[in-house]
Amino acid sequence: MPLLVMKFGGTSVADLDRIANAAAKVQREVERGYDVIVIVSAMSGKTNELVGWVEGTSRLYDAREYDAVVASGENVTAGLMALRLQEMGVPARSWQGWQVPINTTAQHSAARFVSIPRANIDAKFAEGMKVAVVAGFQGIGPDGRITTLGRGGSDTTAVAFAAAFGAERCDIYTDVDGVYTTDPRISSKARKLDRIAFEEMLELASLGAKVLQTRSVELAMRYNVRLRVLSSFEDTDETSGTLVCDEDEIMESRVVSGVAYSRDEAKITLVTVEDRPGISAAIFQPLADAGVNVDMIVQNISEKDYEDHPGSVTDMTFSCPVNQVERARKAMENARSAGLIAYDDLAVDTEVAKVSVVGIGMRSHAGVAARMFKALADENINIKVIATSEIKISVLIDRKYMELAVQALHDAFELERA
Amino acid sequence: MPLLVMKFGGTSVADLDRIANAAAKVQREVERGYDVIVIVSAMSGKTNELVGWVEGTSRLYDAREYDAVVASGENVTAGLMALRLQEMGVPARSWQGWQVPINTTAQHSAARFVSIPRANIDAKFAEGMKVAVVAGFQGIGPDGRITTLGRGGSDTTAVAFAAAFGAERCDIYTDVDGVYTTDPRISSKARKLDRIAFEEMLELASLGAKVLQTRSVELAMRYNVRLRVLSSFEDTDETSGTLVCDEDEIMESRVVSGVAYSRDEAKITLVTVEDRPGISAAIFQPLADAGVNVDMIVQNISEKDYEDHPGSVTDMTFSCPVNQVERARKAMENARSAGLIAYDDLAVDTEVAKVSVVGIGMRSHAGVAARMFKALADENINIKVIATSEIKISVLIDRKYMELAVQALHDAFELERA
Repeated sequence: MPLLVMKFGGTSVADLDRIANAAAKVQREVERGYDVIVIVSAMSGKTNELVGWVEGTSRLYDAREYDAVVASGENVTAGLMALRLQEMGVPARSWQGWQVPINTTAQHSAARFVSIPRANIDAKFAEGMKVAVVAGFQGIGPDGRITTLGRGGSDTTAVAFAAAFGAERCDIYTDVDGVYTTDPRISSKARKLDRIAFEEMLELASLGAKVLQTRSVELAMRYNVRLRVLSSFEDTDETSGTLVCDEDEIMESRVVSGVAYSRDEAKITLVTVEDRPGISAAIFQPLADAGVNVDMIVQNISEKDYEDHPGSVTDMTFSCPVNQVERARKAMENARSAGLIAYDDLAVDTEVAKVSVVGIGMRSHAGVAARMFKALADENINIKVIATSEIKISVLIDRKYMELAVQALHDAFELERA
Repeated sequence: MPLLVMKFGGTSVADLDRIANAAAKVQREVERGYDVIVIVSAMSGKTNELVGWVEGTSRLYDAREYDAVVASGENVTAGLMALRLQEMGVPARSWQGWQVPINTTAQHSAARFVSIPRANIDAKFAEGMKVAVVAGFQGIGPDGRITTLGRGGSDTTAVAFAAAFGAERCDIYTDVDGVYTTDPRISSKARKLDRIAFEEMLELASLGAKVLQTRSVELAMRYNVRLRVLSSFEDTDETSGTLVCDEDEIMESRVVSGVAYSRDEAKITLVTVEDRPGISAAIFQPLADAGVNVDMIVQNISEKDYEDHPGSVTDMTFSCPVNQVERARKAMENARSAGLIAYDDLAVDTEVAKVSVVGIGMRSHAGVAARMFKALADENINIKVIATSEIKISVLIDRKYMELAVQALHDAFELERA
């Protein structure tokens, strides 16, 4: 029997009507001849309620108890979804993480999958069950306690099940109808993509596109799980949404697939840093220890040779989320006080945004960077920092130009055209 | 280390403040030198919310899914309570039913305990844990699925743990401060009892006193678990509340310990029933099958010998909750249509209430019934049905006299005096 994994996020199961709606989509796939594994999130709002209770009870909470409390949200949805399917005549049952069992590492609230043995669920499929409804976001650790997977855990659960059970496809039902060339709220010309390569989706996800969580895309890419993003709130068929797949499955050749942005960036420059072997580690280790998510890093080779800095010096620039600036500043000042690093000044610019173009076609097409920089120059947008990867070019610019830059790049790469 | 079981019901853990308040009571017992097992209910309102969702999803729901959904309420409280205790510096962890494991029968929503192995929890006590917070009301069935115990399941869980772990006492924290000689809302002379015998508590519980659930008292009596009922909302010490214990522990001798009542009773009489061997079974089996909770049963030997009933006939009267009258009527009519029983008429009186006096002293004191009936007669209250057990006398009377009867009996047996 071919098998499908279907995942419904919190807004897709927010109340009994939406659970019924999602169940109808599951039923349709069963009627098409699939066995289905459904992965569900907590009803929207419920996880926040539970997290609020935990945080209200204990400031420095025990992550094991946090997990035990928070995982209950998904258990409720799983039971209700199974009941709804039964009510519609579809043989279904719910599975909590420990019942499958979804074996994970012991890192509570940030656990990773160790194994998902198929035996228990396969035995029920063999007995005639058509749908296994699995509580997402959770598992069981080596000590027999409940774990959760952290951010995006339900998407990741779906992909992991698709890999473990050799699913034909993993359908992620959400509140958008697919992946767009850019944010439709910013550019009216944004176009839904029929297909996108794993690598592209990964870059878009890590750049702030909220559709899929980075970790789930990584996992899908590693196990070559075809991932489809589509809407819970529309009638959908087999051609709906956007398929995230191996680039071999993408016929059309595109240089750039999308334009992404991240609004709340900050640029921090350590001015006149003593340049010596190991200085990068000396700077970025304290930042990592402080939990600062450093994104772009640029080191300007400086020719400065001031009287009070007879040796070689440099400027070091990096970006991080704007709400982590104070944490970064403190980490740097502590490192300086401890004599680990030396710099004259720490310059902060909290008024920047990141805009990126992403596309697998970049690999084989020269001139993408030039086309990008020209498009920005034509709008008189000054580029503050540039960072590139194999399939992505990102720039930091003044935040006030962000929307303009996204629109200009969308036009420059003709993304409105299929 | 001496061990105590403490149980907190839904209103005692209704929000984070109340959980903190309950945790403070637990901490005090730890400071007194006890290891503690805490049994918690769901935060009040939560179970109803979950049940509402289940019933809203599926009319004839799968009890296994119902249990999986509903049990999550207790899991949340258990985690929060453990966190709160940790925050106060008390080494604690939460246990869900399957983690202990609390092994039960497979009867979902009405499961019974099979075994509560001590090994897992004892191992943690040995490692320095001072408090095990256990989710009440739930267990795990032989098929590895979550079960719930049905009504009063959390009280019963507490008693079962007290028995399994040889607890010195099982303290049930609730929203009343003990067991009273009668309902203080009805008689201002109601007095809190310091001690009450298991048998008396059992009769009072089955008569509608909401303090403890019958099943938990039965279990306590069987395993001789000393049970204390006390208030979550007052400062309490070792003499607070009411101790439910073996009658040997009760020094004072009392004829009657309490007056109980049940407001919403109905009296049903099958008039002119053909009297033959097996007629009782023929009447009460269909009622049982229909889920009617028959309470009192009275058969009047009738000397009637009407023309159309040449054989022996009788009247059969029984009582049941008033909201089950229609179900009872239908069961009787169906049985008559099927030719299983024969009767002329079914007379229903939905305006009755049950009033009972309960006391272990009755066994050895004659005249209790006479004293009861005289007290009612003095108030011109007509007795419609009488039923007695070894330590209880119950009567059905017109509902409008219920409060008056309770007060008169409370006076007649001088229950206001310690």
